[in-house]
Amino acid sequence: MSERITMSHGAGGTIMQDLIKRYIVAHLGGSGVEVPLEALDDSAVVDEIVLKSDSHTVKPLFFPGGDIGRMAISGTVNDIAVMGADPIALAAGFILEEGFPIGEFEKIVSSMKETCKEAGVYVVTGDTKVVEKGALDKFVINTSGIGKRSEALESNIQVVKKYRPFNSRWLLDSNIREGDKLLVSGTVGDHGIAVLSFREGYGFDTEVKSDVAPLNKLAKRILMVGGIVKIKDPTRGGLSNALNEWSDKSKIGILIHEDAVPIGEGVRAACEMLGIDPLEVGNEGKLVIATVPGMAEQILDELKATPKGKSAAIIGEATHRFDGVVMETAIGGRRIVSAPAGDPVPRIC
Amino acid sequence: MSERITMSHGAGGTIMQDLIKRYIVAHLGGSGVEVPLEALDDSAVVDEIVLKSDSHTVKPLFFPGGDIGRMAISGTVNDIAVMGADPIALAAGFILEEGFPIGEFEKIVSSMKETCKEAGVYVVTGDTKVVEKGALDKFVINTSGIGKRSEALESNIQVVKKYRPFNSRWLLDSNIREGDKLLVSGTVGDHGIAVLSFREGYGFDTEVKSDVAPLNKLAKRILMVGGIVKIKDPTRGGLSNALNEWSDKSKIGILIHEDAVPIGEGVRAACEMLGIDPLEVGNEGKLVIATVPGMAEQILDELKATPKGKSAAIIGEATHRFDGVVMETAIGGRRIVSAPAGDPVPRIC
Repeated sequence: MSERITMSHGAGGTIMQDLIKRYIVAHLGGSGVEVPLEALDDSAVVDEIVLKSDSHTVKPLFFPGGDIGRMAISGTVNDIAVMGADPIALAAGFILEEGFPIGEFEKIVSSMKETCKEAGVYVVTGDTKVVEKGALDKFVINTSGIGKRSEALESNIQVVKKYRPFNSRWLLDSNIREGDKLLVSGTVGDHGIAVLSFREGYGFDTEVKSDVAPLNKLAKRILMVGGIVKIKDPTRGGLSNALNEWSDKSKIGILIHEDAVPIGEGVRAACEMLGIDPLEVGNEGKLVIATVPGMAEQILDELKATPKGKSAAIIGEATHRFDGVVMETAIGGRRIVSAPAGDPVPRIC
Repeated sequence: MSERITMSHGAGGTIMQDLIKRYIVAHLGGSGVEVPLEALDDSAVVDEIVLKSDSHTVKPLFFPGGDIGRMAISGTVNDIAVMGADPIALAAGFILEEGFPIGEFEKIVSSMKETCKEAGVYVVTGDTKVVEKGALDKFVINTSGIGKRSEALESNIQVVKKYRPFNSRWLLDSNIREGDKLLVSGTVGDHGIAVLSFREGYGFDTEVKSDVAPLNKLAKRILMVGGIVKIKDPTRGGLSNALNEWSDKSKIGILIHEDAVPIGEGVRAACEMLGIDPLEVGNEGKLVIATVPGMAEQILDELKATPKGKSAAIIGEATHRFDGVVMETAIGGRRIVSAPAGDPVPRIC
């Protein structure tokens, strides 16, 4: 009863998952909708509507490569897109601290607008609350959104079915099977390291920029190629957490190759200096993609043909040879990639 | 540029409306959806989906008659219901302060569950963030939700059309016409006074309890009777703000009768003592209803037959004889009921 909330309870790893399962799903689950709360997937699906909500508490509000407004749009758009849906509308809930400069507020809203344009979606409703000075660290945004089944999802699933049985109607964490290939759309760890470095003044920020971006068009483009069984945006807890969720929910082992995972030089240097695993650092503009093996190369080519996907790589595959996530290291050894307890960088989103 | 956010920017009155129009709608409007952001109605409507988002920052988290969990469900359910829709799913975004007792968190989630049961709706997705101690006053929730056109709305509109032309597909603030009767479902001001009194220790709380409740079933029940052109839940800025929004968007005068507006004794006494207008105080479990004149008595009877509507009353009518909202006072005079600059009680929702 004297247990208290810690930063780890919001850090996207196993400690957060436990809190959600024990206190949120236990009380609020049981809806019986197509993709319910207890699936703990990227979004829910109800009556063919994809629904997602995300709060943004990133600190600072403006950082190299982005700001909280760009994040607020991208995060929700991406969570809807990775289910195989087109985002059709967003809702924005602003909470402001008394005394917050209106000029900064307008900069944030203006950044939301630009990001909406990039994604091709609108904010159609919202809510504004103000709390007294000292009751909030400046500003938070919640963005929720709805999406509808993408036509590209239908054609994608037809391609999957040429290769193997597939009875899921959506792209779910539980869809991965033996032999499926795993790709990332670019370098990992950029967002978390950019925010951390800028916030703490480490100076890596001269080279590391956040990747925050809406990825719905990229997701749709690769769905048009076909053969994809799941996409995920590896935010809090990074690639490690995303892969462990897949392994857990699909009940299959995942093998990744250390050499194959693209990591920028600045991120690598910062992570080494700070003793952080770049695989556990959150991203805001990357996709992890699972495809049937026969389509992996075509998906890779399609990714590489885009600016956001130019550093894409095939990083591993699903296998029944073991449980959990294992990484084949550069020197030929193997190590377990555990689900992180939480993202090593706090308040990155 | 040196302008800063004040508590009034979140208090539901004209100052908030100005902020929203100048900085939010100006940038984010233009979607072209059926009921867009710029309508500033209770919810948006996109592709037949009603969408709403609401953040809750009420202080304290537990108060006489309710808590933030009950509010978080009721507020969003009500905003969807008043458009003429059945809520079909909710999304909950939690932001917690480091150090918040998990026992209290569970009490709140458990209250959400009970309120969901009462409303007949589920939370199907969510998000959990934690900020460091001092960066938030304990806890806030954002609840967003989606609804679908209620069958009761169709039958209701058929009844309206027996009395006059009606070309709106939803219950909108702009639907009110000459002669329409205005009702409230019960006493006004209870929620704001209950929270204020309990928070400041005025002692009125022994008699005044918040009315916070989901009203979707009540709204549906009166829609089944028919003849309703708009329903609204008069939250921040109270009845005054709700009526001024109707007057403004429907471009019609509104006359209300002071004697007819139900106000509890405790609220009346507290408002007199504190110099607050009870019509400007927020409610969380009341409906204001506009009906064609021929159906007002039947709607009143239906309301009075329910526990939540037992103090319902016809309080006025729409008229072209003047602009704005005017109140006929108990002693026979008339005074203008201006749109409040903001709710006189801060952080009630």
